[in-house]
Amino acid sequence: MTDTITALATPPGNGGISVIRLSGPESTEIADKVFKGNTSLLNVSTHTIHYGSIVDADLLIDQVTAAVFLNPQSYTGEDVVEISCHGGPLIVSQIINLLVKSGARLADAGGFTKRAFLNGKLDLTQVEAVADMIHSVSIPGCQTSARQLSGNFTSRLSEFHAQLLDICSLVELELDFADEDVELIDRKSIGEKIETAIDFCIELSSSHRSAEILRSGYCVGIAGYPNAGKSTLFNALLKRERAIVSETPGTTRDYLDETIYVNDIAVRITDTAGIRETKDSIEIDGLRMAESVLDQSNMILVLNDVTISPHYSNSLLFSIETKYPGAKCYLVQNKIDKLHKEDRIDYPLSISAKQNMFINDLRDFIERDAMESTERCQDVLINQRQATLLDRAATELQNAMQLVMDERENELISLEIATAAKTLGEITGETWSEEVLNNIFSRFCIGK
Amino acid sequence: MTDTITALATPPGNGGISVIRLSGPESTEIADKVFKGNTSLLNVSTHTIHYGSIVDADLLIDQVTAAVFLNPQSYTGEDVVEISCHGGPLIVSQIINLLVKSGARLADAGGFTKRAFLNGKLDLTQVEAVADMIHSVSIPGCQTSARQLSGNFTSRLSEFHAQLLDICSLVELELDFADEDVELIDRKSIGEKIETAIDFCIELSSSHRSAEILRSGYCVGIAGYPNAGKSTLFNALLKRERAIVSETPGTTRDYLDETIYVNDIAVRITDTAGIRETKDSIEIDGLRMAESVLDQSNMILVLNDVTISPHYSNSLLFSIETKYPGAKCYLVQNKIDKLHKEDRIDYPLSISAKQNMFINDLRDFIERDAMESTERCQDVLINQRQATLLDRAATELQNAMQLVMDERENELISLEIATAAKTLGEITGETWSEEVLNNIFSRFCIGK
Repeated sequence: MTDTITALATPPGNGGISVIRLSGPESTEIADKVFKGNTSLLNVSTHTIHYGSIVDADLLIDQVTAAVFLNPQSYTGEDVVEISCHGGPLIVSQIINLLVKSGARLADAGGFTKRAFLNGKLDLTQVEAVADMIHSVSIPGCQTSARQLSGNFTSRLSEFHAQLLDICSLVELELDFADEDVELIDRKSIGEKIETAIDFCIELSSSHRSAEILRSGYCVGIAGYPNAGKSTLFNALLKRERAIVSETPGTTRDYLDETIYVNDIAVRITDTAGIRETKDSIEIDGLRMAESVLDQSNMILVLNDVTISPHYSNSLLFSIETKYPGAKCYLVQNKIDKLHKEDRIDYPLSISAKQNMFINDLRDFIERDAMESTERCQDVLINQRQATLLDRAATELQNAMQLVMDERENELISLEIATAAKTLGEITGETWSEEVLNNIFSRFCIGK
Repeated sequence: MTDTITALATPPGNGGISVIRLSGPESTEIADKVFKGNTSLLNVSTHTIHYGSIVDADLLIDQVTAAVFLNPQSYTGEDVVEISCHGGPLIVSQIINLLVKSGARLADAGGFTKRAFLNGKLDLTQVEAVADMIHSVSIPGCQTSARQLSGNFTSRLSEFHAQLLDICSLVELELDFADEDVELIDRKSIGEKIETAIDFCIELSSSHRSAEILRSGYCVGIAGYPNAGKSTLFNALLKRERAIVSETPGTTRDYLDETIYVNDIAVRITDTAGIRETKDSIEIDGLRMAESVLDQSNMILVLNDVTISPHYSNSLLFSIETKYPGAKCYLVQNKIDKLHKEDRIDYPLSISAKQNMFINDLRDFIERDAMESTERCQDVLINQRQATLLDRAATELQNAMQLVMDERENELISLEIATAAKTLGEITGETWSEEVLNNIFSRFCIGK
């Protein structure tokens, strides 16, 4: 990291101001070449702002402010200059071109945050929290990521990491005195400590699905045979006309996807095409997409036309439950307004989408489930990478446990626990590979 | 302006950082209520940056930097705090909600720049330069606006304004000594000064059309009878397949509009529907749009199918020239590849769009005209408002000139010149009305 990188740090587009960031050993030198103000940027204090012009030789580009952060007191841990210019794409591109001409290199995706990690300003869980915050679709998710960024997860992990190393040393201590045939700590106590560690890993890992809901929203798919009233229900839940409703089966060719917010949690409701055999190629594409949508759903509402029969969609419900085991599937009886009052009572979820009957009850039902599903995330949003590492650590600890139970050599137990500790170290990035970093930063955009 | 306003100052969307601005007497107090850092924001120096957290009671929202600008050394001339948070829409909305809860008001469109004007930090020509820079589509236009923002236009206008007041005092001086029957300055000299002033106004005002080209791009419309090859030419100029080309007349139902850049000037090329009588309603809508497009064109190329006859489109050219007097209209002979070589020579603009023959010559021709059309803009992009005021001032000065020539009373001449000076004052906003301001700031977005 001997070079100095630059990129637009704010979202692209038109606005009052845009901020262009420079980071690296030559940040102030490069900025000073194109900045003309009352003072040179070479000799200013950290965390100060200076007013001036960006000029290309004699050509005025813009009037700006330049904020200077000297290492290590900056986001990246390097010298950083942030140029606030007027918020137009052509102003930004002129200034960035000028900075590149003056010796800076265009930053790669996630380039600034990667330097923050490599300089020890953020660990990997914090890096991932930054990405989650920026792309957050729900306020609880955003707030959980903020806590993760502030280091709550880091400190929980490092505390746990210390406990594992503690067990290692206990086991190794016993090893040192093995010749003396004294059992310094009993195996039962070690076993208990390992059990606790396994529980910790499994519990955290299993909050991954809840975290996905906070990260991307709670997904509710509406499925059912043609003309069950799926699009009408979709509109009723959204409280407005979004889907084109018609009497002709197969009107919904594509799937429709809209987000509503219940208690600040994003609930993505998807209206799928009618599930049936079809030869119409557009409709087949729609069906294929419907399948991928249902696959990602947390809840699938199988809508049944009760006027045909309350049991008409039972086999569909069964096949959907079998095909999508990750989702909670519910049968919803629709068109109950067409039944006699005395016939309505038996079905737990009964509505009339068209007459807007019991739609609020259904919305409450969805809300309750969405809330319950996210309750487990306290101060960390476990992602796929972290869950995989936690599962691996749990397996390694279970291996250690097995060795304890089999009364195997302490060296082996200690080695297995140390492996688990190393696996956990990968979560925060204590140990990392270029491949892991590339994978993480590929999610970032340029300028982050 | 006793209240404190807040808004997102950077473009909306996802990015590394977003900047939320507070401006007004309570900026630091309000920011300090939600900001927890090592220092209170109440007692910091101007142009300093402070690291900390935004918290809602005990709830952590984000880790941010807060930049403090104390009045009058800020964009608006008031106390300003700029909070740089992570660049996610939900983070931004949480912080803005919190600031509003703590006493700030959401800024109106252009709210910050309006305060900058009212506090004398920017005049109206500079305000308009800010808007032009942000929305600029060409680098020369962007750079001209930057010069206008830096005050070049302001100083030219105020110099000119002073000259007018100078003439006034000369005329009034003569007035004071009128009884003594001495002609202190001859009327011829005053007349010359007024003539110079009129020229200044007319010259500036007439650069309005060139300014529009730098501001929005040079517009080239392609017109012609069906099957003349308009869409093929459009694609050839763009160097790629954009329009759907077919042998069936009337394929282009809507108009297509693409921008190419020649010497950093945006050239908007528009392919219009075939001009002919039609009963197809979609095509009629297309024709109507084509008319509005041609109306805004700087250049109209009337494409003729030379294989029918080189004179086949002459009457069309004539009627287009008559209908759109603001545009330069040229007949372009197409399909010359189908003529014998000896028949090709006579027509100045001859191409084969399909065979890509002489397309670069046509592109050069357009480029030359676009360049010439924008040469007159040096350090100001005159807009409609300014052109109208300059025209009005020219008329008022012509009235004064007429009074001089008619040897009318000096009081009348002086009054008319003073009126012109006042009209010019409206350009920079020396004199302004709420209506004028509202009109200007309605072009701005919130956060500017």
